[in-house]
Amino acid sequence: MSRDFEHVALIGLGLIASSISHAMRRAGMKARITGHARSIETRDKAADLGLCDQVFDTASAAVAGADLVILAVPVGAMATIVAEIAPHLRKDVILTDVGSVKGAVIDAVAPHISNDVEFIPGHPLAGTEYSGPEAGFASLFDNRWCILTPSGDNDPHAVTRLRDFWQALGANVDTMDAEHHDLVLATTSHAPHLIAYTMVGVADDLKRVTETEVINYSAAGFRDFTRIAASDPTMWRDVFLNNKDATLEILGRFTEELFALQRAIRIGDGDHLHAYFTRTRAVRRSIIEAGQDTDIANFGRGVQDTDDA
Amino acid sequence: MSRDFEHVALIGLGLIASSISHAMRRAGMKARITGHARSIETRDKAADLGLCDQVFDTASAAVAGADLVILAVPVGAMATIVAEIAPHLRKDVILTDVGSVKGAVIDAVAPHISNDVEFIPGHPLAGTEYSGPEAGFASLFDNRWCILTPSGDNDPHAVTRLRDFWQALGANVDTMDAEHHDLVLATTSHAPHLIAYTMVGVADDLKRVTETEVINYSAAGFRDFTRIAASDPTMWRDVFLNNKDATLEILGRFTEELFALQRAIRIGDGDHLHAYFTRTRAVRRSIIEAGQDTDIANFGRGVQDTDDA
Repeated sequence: MSRDFEHVALIGLGLIASSISHAMRRAGMKARITGHARSIETRDKAADLGLCDQVFDTASAAVAGADLVILAVPVGAMATIVAEIAPHLRKDVILTDVGSVKGAVIDAVAPHISNDVEFIPGHPLAGTEYSGPEAGFASLFDNRWCILTPSGDNDPHAVTRLRDFWQALGANVDTMDAEHHDLVLATTSHAPHLIAYTMVGVADDLKRVTETEVINYSAAGFRDFTRIAASDPTMWRDVFLNNKDATLEILGRFTEELFALQRAIRIGDGDHLHAYFTRTRAVRRSIIEAGQDTDIANFGRGVQDTDDA
Repeated sequence: MSRDFEHVALIGLGLIASSISHAMRRAGMKARITGHARSIETRDKAADLGLCDQVFDTASAAVAGADLVILAVPVGAMATIVAEIAPHLRKDVILTDVGSVKGAVIDAVAPHISNDVEFIPGHPLAGTEYSGPEAGFASLFDNRWCILTPSGDNDPHAVTRLRDFWQALGANVDTMDAEHHDLVLATTSHAPHLIAYTMVGVADDLKRVTETEVINYSAAGFRDFTRIAASDPTMWRDVFLNNKDATLEILGRFTEELFALQRAIRIGDGDHLHAYFTRTRAVRRSIIEAGQDTDIANFGRGVQDTDDA
């Protein structure tokens, strides 16, 4: 049986950290929660929302005495924050993070910490297009997957404790090595985000189609892309800069395939298109069967009853 | 004041035609509804669902006496069906369609009809990832746009009658020329669909990432693409084959932009990425303000409470 944490420090107080706080309370965890965010506005909001028992002006003060420290800052900010907190970490602390990239986070964190620290990189595959401390909610992790990428040096008992923690927040937990994580996420998250950003950027920048037309006629497919293209710019800049190789590999495959389909369109090869579109339909069914998306039409979007469109 | 239709014939009884039927009844229209679908299974289902006052085995019988005929078949099937029904159309009939492409539909339909027929091409920008007569529902067109592409030869009174019809079903109505429609839709619908199909196809076909990984970890972005990549394969094959030029033009712009972003990733130009991602965020806000999408996080997807993932 795994021991509960006594004191959890949340470094960064955005969507993920605030959802962790809500989910910890929902699970009845008794741990003291401390927190820190770089901007005073975020700290004030987090305090108003009661996300932490105490919000500190410095990350070092927030981690003092914590037996679990969760880094929930953009990937590009990890190295600086770890350098700052490392001297203040408790000896037996479990240090984890929620970054979307694992190889680069390990490179950023590992040089700064002593052997006493159990550093177990993590990544909950959950989020929304909103960010900030007020965006979090307790059910964000329910039935979503959290991937841990422990190394051979980690104490298996520490890994079990972190696994139990995420499961108590509602998540399923899987482990894999960091490099494989980065390739899997390039496929299921990073390349799709870049593609969505690109499509939205293109549509916004055409000479012969007006912005009003793009907006009004977006329900024919385009609007689906705009949700993930509305995600936090800083977080996503850092993801791409820190998972370059895997993302560029998947984008290369994507472009190759796109060219093949463009060619099928150009030469009028309807059979190729039909077979391709039939196969992709089956992927959707598998995702719904795995409980990773709703089967309600249009994602169950409520009908908009505004009349001002 | 526009005169109500007395008899509406629905040719093709899938998602759009069945939604028209439901929305007509919701609006209290008294028109007799007749219908035809090519497959006996679809005709039987439509009859069971009571979508029509009478379902006919032939399109010719279904259109006899109708003052409004709506072609709701895939774009590639338009020419054949119009050649068949043309001799059976009432003299003063309004003939329209719901195809996603307008230039090719006009080319397919116009040669077969006499000058007495008021042919007014149309396209309701509404749908879901589901198809078939049981997929329709009355609110599908609410606050969505229906684009009509009348020609200078059309009687303005007939255009007004068709506009009033769509507005009674809940839609906003706009008019533009067919060529412009096809470019606008290539941007907001056809290119996004092809891109989504491509991304889903790529993810499904990687050697180093398993299908189970793609499915389980889809909530990190990928799953959004699978919804539109689950749309009807026949309809979409026909869209691409019949809107080649505009779709390939937009895809060309997309590839150009994707390469620019890939280059920014490769050379580590974070400022370029951040500025781009900030701009696309604003597009999402405009779409929500225009009532064309929900502002609820994750499209308001219900939390999946299955435990079998």
